[in-house]
Amino acid sequence: MIFESKILPRYAETDQMGVVHHSVYAIWYEQARTDFLNAIGFPYDKIEELGIMTPIVALESKYYKPAHYNEEVKIQTKFIQFTPVKFIIKYHLYNPQNELINMGTTTLTWVNKKNFKIVNIKKEFPDIFNKLITYVESDKSE
Amino acid sequence: MIFESKILPRYAETDQMGVVHHSVYAIWYEQARTDFLNAIGFPYDKIEELGIMTPIVALESKYYKPAHYNEEVKIQTKFIQFTPVKFIIKYHLYNPQNELINMGTTTLTWVNKKNFKIVNIKKEFPDIFNKLITYVESDKSE
Amino acid sequence: MIFESKILPRYAETDQMGVVHHSVYAIWYEQARTDFLNAIGFPYDKIEELGIMTPIVALESKYYKPAHYNEEVKIQTKFIQFTPVKFIIKYHLYNPQNELINMGTTTLTWVNKKNFKIVNIKKEFPDIFNKLITYVESDKSE
Amino acid sequence: MIFESKILPRYAETDQMGVVHHSVYAIWYEQARTDFLNAIGFPYDKIEELGIMTPIVALESKYYKPAHYNEEVKIQTKFIQFTPVKFIIKYHLYNPQNELINMGTTTLTWVNKKNFKIVNIKKEFPDIFNKLITYVESDKSE
Repeated sequence: MIFESKILPRYAETDQMGVVHHSVYAIWYEQARTDFLNAIGFPYDKIEELGIMTPIVALESKYYKPAHYNEEVKIQTKFIQFTPVKFIIKYHLYNPQNELINMGTTTLTWVNKKNFKIVNIKKEFPDIFNKLITYVESDKSE
Repeated sequence: MIFESKILPRYAETDQMGVVHHSVYAIWYEQARTDFLNAIGFPYDKIEELGIMTPIVALESKYYKPAHYNEEVKIQTKFIQFTPVKFIIKYHLYNPQNELINMGTTTLTWVNKKNFKIVNIKKEFPDIFNKLITYVESDKSE
Repeated sequence: MIFESKILPRYAETDQMGVVHHSVYAIWYEQARTDFLNAIGFPYDKIEELGIMTPIVALESKYYKPAHYNEEVKIQTKFIQFTPVKFIIKYHLYNPQNELINMGTTTLTWVNKKNFKIVNIKKEFPDIFNKLITYVESDKSE
Repeated sequence: MIFESKILPRYAETDQMGVVHHSVYAIWYEQARTDFLNAIGFPYDKIEELGIMTPIVALESKYYKPAHYNEEVKIQTKFIQFTPVKFIIKYHLYNPQNELINMGTTTLTWVNKKNFKIVNIKKEFPDIFNKLITYVESDKSE
């Protein structure tokens, strides 16, 4: 599944170059993940309530064109890899003219909320693993 | 005691007006509080380890002049009121030309980390209360 | 007119207290203003293209209850005062249980984009003045 | 030259995992660049005054360990590549126990402030090019 969400760039997200600051994209990727998990009925706040969290271990971002205040950005999000201990999500961002403005990749892992130790999600929470793995898409983007 | 700290405005803190975004000042006030507590040997992270936190219940800010990227801001911080359940801190911010650019006031309270219930700091942690009350300054700023 | 907008708190907006950080509310107020101006067909980016901007000169915020990640916040926004040189907007924020969690007030002014000098909007841009003044609401909130 | 700067993580930079949010590192890298340019007498605000800017075109970040509120982070910054149209900077971040917690790489380009068109810095601003190229370090980090 390729999931699509929409974000309206905020004024506070711009910088004195007159465009959205590059650090904001990581926050948008995260919001796209939230939207994705809400859409499939697996909200991330409910996951944290089970005692697990998904910190980021790697982030990559390529910036092709700027984003502007109040000009809607469309984000296409897909799981491209999902193993018992980590998952990789890819994001393609488009401006209102449907031009690709940014591409991001995040690698996340599962950890125990108490001690940040890696959790094998397939073993410990097979329901989550079996549900999420059905959403993995092959990556033909590059 | 009037405590002084210094902050160098970050590029990410500017917006497309070419000045520091107004939401950033609350973050600077907070950093000034951290600097203050570090300076008197009462770091806030150690306070949280005791099971208490100090959420903000009121914030006021007056903006006189803009702050700019990479132009150091001086913050004068003082406790102007301190009771067993809340405390009020005031901030005066100056640019490198020593002009007053912003004035802020924050009211904070003490709560239990587990349930956000108000804590009477004088009763429950008299050491903290007795130490902090010695730093209260009369407010002649307005 | 009382305008209503909705915001889904982001993960990045939380802090280690487990709630939305207090500096975020100023950004939400700003987004509520953007939503308001979009709704009445007067987008703020078009206003800036005319060579004017609306910096904040005063901000007040009262925090009654925390906001949480992924729990929608409803913002009711209204113009409570509008003169040729400044305007005051008030915000009431509600959680999904419809409890008032925060109340904000912002005072904004009109300035020339080039030199940050105050602009008399009634004189210089009577169309904007005449349009916006029709949205002023009496303030019975306190 | 390997330049070293220090950052004290702010409370607002933490999230409900109890650690610094991953989007903050891009802001710290940027601050490290500012510190670097200030140290060599080439402040970035003076560069922008010449009509050029340096937007990010690529960012990579690897997260090894969390950063915590009020626990100083040391950043080692070095230019690892510098051509007439782009430059690559690498960052190694350490916690107070001197453990490597994060490694970042940013690729920046030179653009004209008015139209975001690429500028050949060697041709248009040879002084900047000749000065900065003296700071390039070979990259033995991986």
